[in-house]
Amino acid sequence: MMARRIRVIGIGAGNPEHLTIEAVNALNTCDVFFIPVKGEEKTFLAGLREEICARFIKGKQPRLIHFDIPARRQDGAYAGAVKDWHEAIAAIYERLLSEETGADETAGLLVWGDPMLYDSTIRIIEHVRARGHVAFEYDVIPGISSLQVLCARHRIPLNRIGEPVQITTGRRLAEGWPQGVNDAAIMLDGIQAYETVADPDAEIFWGAYLGTSMETVLSGRLGDIAPDISRVRAAARAEHGWIMDTYLIRRKAGPEDGEAQP
Amino acid sequence: MMARRIRVIGIGAGNPEHLTIEAVNALNTCDVFFIPVKGEEKTFLAGLREEICARFIKGKQPRLIHFDIPARRQDGAYAGAVKDWHEAIAAIYERLLSEETGADETAGLLVWGDPMLYDSTIRIIEHVRARGHVAFEYDVIPGISSLQVLCARHRIPLNRIGEPVQITTGRRLAEGWPQGVNDAAIMLDGIQAYETVADPDAEIFWGAYLGTSMETVLSGRLGDIAPDISRVRAAARAEHGWIMDTYLIRRKAGPEDGEAQP
Ligand SMILES: C[S@@+](CC[C@H](N)C(=O)[O-])C[C@H]1O[C@@H](n2cnc3c(N)ncnc32)[C@H](O)[C@@H]1O
Ligand SMILES: C[S@@+](CC[C@H](N)C(=O)[O-])C[C@H]1O[C@@H](n2cnc3c(N)ncnc32)[C@H](O)[C@@H]1O
Repeated sequence: MMARRIRVIGIGAGNPEHLTIEAVNALNTCDVFFIPVKGEEKTFLAGLREEICARFIKGKQPRLIHFDIPARRQDGAYAGAVKDWHEAIAAIYERLLSEETGADETAGLLVWGDPMLYDSTIRIIEHVRARGHVAFEYDVIPGISSLQVLCARHRIPLNRIGEPVQITTGRRLAEGWPQGVNDAAIMLDGIQAYETVADPDAEIFWGAYLGTSMETVLSGRLGDIAPDISRVRAAARAEHGWIMDTYLIRRKAGPEDGEAQP
Repeated sequence: MMARRIRVIGIGAGNPEHLTIEAVNALNTCDVFFIPVKGEEKTFLAGLREEICARFIKGKQPRLIHFDIPARRQDGAYAGAVKDWHEAIAAIYERLLSEETGADETAGLLVWGDPMLYDSTIRIIEHVRARGHVAFEYDVIPGISSLQVLCARHRIPLNRIGEPVQITTGRRLAEGWPQGVNDAAIMLDGIQAYETVADPDAEIFWGAYLGTSMETVLSGRLGDIAPDISRVRAAARAEHGWIMDTYLIRRKAGPEDGEAQP
């Protein structure tokens, strides 16, 4: 039976060697890749995707189809703008599937980090399916996320023994410390939300461009190191024209670590 | 300069193909591996570690040193028992490092999933360092965690758009739904804590033995499917003698998904 197929492949957070054997094998089943080109990081990210294809695909070379990610509407409600944006990308995928992918071919989508973490590729594919114009199968291959690289570089566990951890965004952290946890991992922070955490004795583990040759990490007592992070962050951003950073903040140890909780 | 070195290598959650290229390269730098043998899952887990070594290590074969994980004290306070247990394992690592690892050799520790997630290998190594009897360097290589495989198999994102998610344990979930989140990922649940969530309209995405040939997944409305999960879980556990399972529960969608929050 002929069927179009999409493979959503996590490629890790910057180092091509983050690719799993499963991902390498999946890459080698793809006839075509859809490569998004977007914003300032575009040269770096599109270049990394091409490097991955060149390095890990053996034999028959797949077609690389670049497409521009449309701009997201900045007015109106966030939810509505995101939904419209996803629909617009879904329309592009639909066209690439029907016009650029043969009826028995496999298309690959290379997703930064892990497709499960603050990424909408799966949601957009579900939009394409809901539109109902082109039939396809799809599967998802996990990849190393930036949070895992952050913890590996700092040689720390994400969570303390038996304790919960919240993964959240800079925007939400700026609204207040998450309830019910002493440990929070922050992604998508364009506003240095760690500066708003009123607990100088907390520990912060920060990393930017993790897995890449520009990788920078800093850690320490929040009250001491927050200004350094902000300085290093601003300088790196100015130098490279873009930044991706993430961090973990640990407040007072939980009882399992042998200390009393507040 | 001669220095002992430890490499803490995430090996993924069951499928040898979860290994990253970085992990494969790290395996090939190790002279010796310390392989824990523990409890009921021992045959399966030790076997998988040996399969990984046999499949991915080329050329010079490293030494595989098996050791028994000591039993954890079951009386008294949890925190104290865990700390004593970690100290006991640290003493074993110290002996394996000084007696079984040459002064310029590299020892590998193969960690299930990702070393950052509910795993104490890093903490135990820090205990060895604190004991101060044997000097060494160490690094950490991330691996695909069971949560990532769970999401990939169900083809779902871990978090909803811009929304937080809490990662926690079955014991904690049984104490009440985590504050401040509508999405919770649960690990280390020996008590079927999902049965205690009083929200039949929540969705659950469950998976056991993820990545292995015994992999089983179920999903649906919590009120409908919880009894099925408990039945399948009990049967699988009886059949195999052990089980490892994890799940994500999603309560009412947040506003970013276009629905009103409670
Ligand atoms: C849209 S999310 C995608 C996350 C990705 N799916 C993952 O698994 O890491 C982008 C955010 O991830 C984090 N991030 C991704 N790659 C990173 C890297 N190499 N170094 C630091 N942070 C990174 C940053 O917080 C960034 O704002
Ligand atoms: C001690 S923790 C270690 C987690 C591991 N470091 C990881 O990254 O997945 C063990 C728990 O992980 C989950 N787990 C690990 N491997 C699993 C698998 N293959 N399938 C389902 N759950 C798994 C279960 O919740 C189990 O109780």
